[in-house]
Amino acid sequence: MPRVKLILEYDGRGFVGWQRQDNGPSVQAALEDAIAAYCGQPCPAFASGRTDAGVHAEGQVAHFDCPRADTPETIRAALNFHIRPKTVAVLAAEIVPDDFHARFSCTGRSYLYRILNRPAHPALEAGRVWWVQRPLDARAMHEAAQVLVGRHDFTSFRAVACQSKSPVKTLDSLEVSRYGEIVEVRTSARSFLHHQVRNMVGTLKLVGEGKWGPRQVEKALAARDRAAAGPTAPPDGLVFLSARYEPMPPASPAM
Amino acid sequence: MPRVKLILEYDGRGFVGWQRQDNGPSVQAALEDAIAAYCGQPCPAFASGRTDAGVHAEGQVAHFDCPRADTPETIRAALNFHIRPKTVAVLAAEIVPDDFHARFSCTGRSYLYRILNRPAHPALEAGRVWWVQRPLDARAMHEAAQVLVGRHDFTSFRAVACQSKSPVKTLDSLEVSRYGEIVEVRTSARSFLHHQVRNMVGTLKLVGEGKWGPRQVEKALAARDRAAAGPTAPPDGLVFLSARYEPMPPASPAM
Repeated sequence: MPRVKLILEYDGRGFVGWQRQDNGPSVQAALEDAIAAYCGQPCPAFASGRTDAGVHAEGQVAHFDCPRADTPETIRAALNFHIRPKTVAVLAAEIVPDDFHARFSCTGRSYLYRILNRPAHPALEAGRVWWVQRPLDARAMHEAAQVLVGRHDFTSFRAVACQSKSPVKTLDSLEVSRYGEIVEVRTSARSFLHHQVRNMVGTLKLVGEGKWGPRQVEKALAARDRAAAGPTAPPDGLVFLSARYEPMPPASPAM
Repeated sequence: MPRVKLILEYDGRGFVGWQRQDNGPSVQAALEDAIAAYCGQPCPAFASGRTDAGVHAEGQVAHFDCPRADTPETIRAALNFHIRPKTVAVLAAEIVPDDFHARFSCTGRSYLYRILNRPAHPALEAGRVWWVQRPLDARAMHEAAQVLVGRHDFTSFRAVACQSKSPVKTLDSLEVSRYGEIVEVRTSARSFLHHQVRNMVGTLKLVGEGKWGPRQVEKALAARDRAAAGPTAPPDGLVFLSARYEPMPPASPAM
């Protein structure tokens, strides 16, 4: 059965997160239901990484093994037909080699976190941004963020429930920029710990407000203690942007 | 009583439009309820123009006469306190002269219309864009749009229910640009007829798909017949951007 790689966009509101759970609708269940409706049989889907409840995606990657021999274009259109009106869209489908795995083959993930920084609450962007009223110094946030770039023990930025074997990760980039009322935090790494991005953003907000300097971010990192870093930023502002894979050899023709 | 000018942002989903109606929640009712809760008495609010059900605003302008003598900053914060969690936000408040009128003093309105032009339906932008699958030629749309700029009888682009005295309007600009998968239509005029922007966009879509040329847009305009132009684009993609007013003399101090 040909393996199919999918690129997914979704609005995290109304989902308990990527992973199928008993307590509400998940992105995985929405996708697997559409796959089952199209294929006529259940086929498990795997994502590059789980996203939490309320977290969005512009370029999540998933794969499944497809018992039907259709073109990628037909697969994409059929899955979108079955998934609507749920707020999940299959942007692209591709036949990939059998050893491709959305999670285990992934060599890089990137996220965007958006803060709406103004006195008035969000109306148009409600659920899509973190609303912070106090003016943030994005430049100070960017400077302090550089303390976190590189290979570190990120225990201070890791959810207590995190199941990763090691707290040591290499953060490739963490960039903070302001565009009018929006402060954007962009970050990339091979992989992230559970809540790592939201915990880094919650900490950088303290810097943006002038409560912390870069030295305190350094100390929080060195403490290897979740209580030493800032609070967890809400899921609303977080968007899974993309997953990176090494170039793949051409797939054998789908049979 | 000092007159207060407000700048409003709202998500048009879930509203029957600006105007108070019996058949569902309106932006006007949401705002007037917040004003009444703040002022302790009902005060009517007037907007620069009505928006239809599902149409959004980044910079709608409204005014009301305020029986409380507070600073603009306090008025803004109080109205936002009372209006939440409805998806309406007061971005700014200002004390203006008594002869200011959001509708009658307005000398220019501008709108943005956003089309998501790709095979996959919108997940993140659902309700915020018009989804058009067939590739659109934004340059051809822009060229054809120039036919409509200037002073014309816009009967062909006017809703049958339009209550405007005259169908003759001067369109100041109508610009079409592509940004990746998004085709943006921006337009400004002293005032617009009912559904005029959505009817112009529905017509330009025919041009973008290659079904019509600029010559047919010219003929549709000259026909002065609603049936001669294209269909009405859905409200989802429309955003009221801003209302223009002539510079005002400083207001007398609020008493």
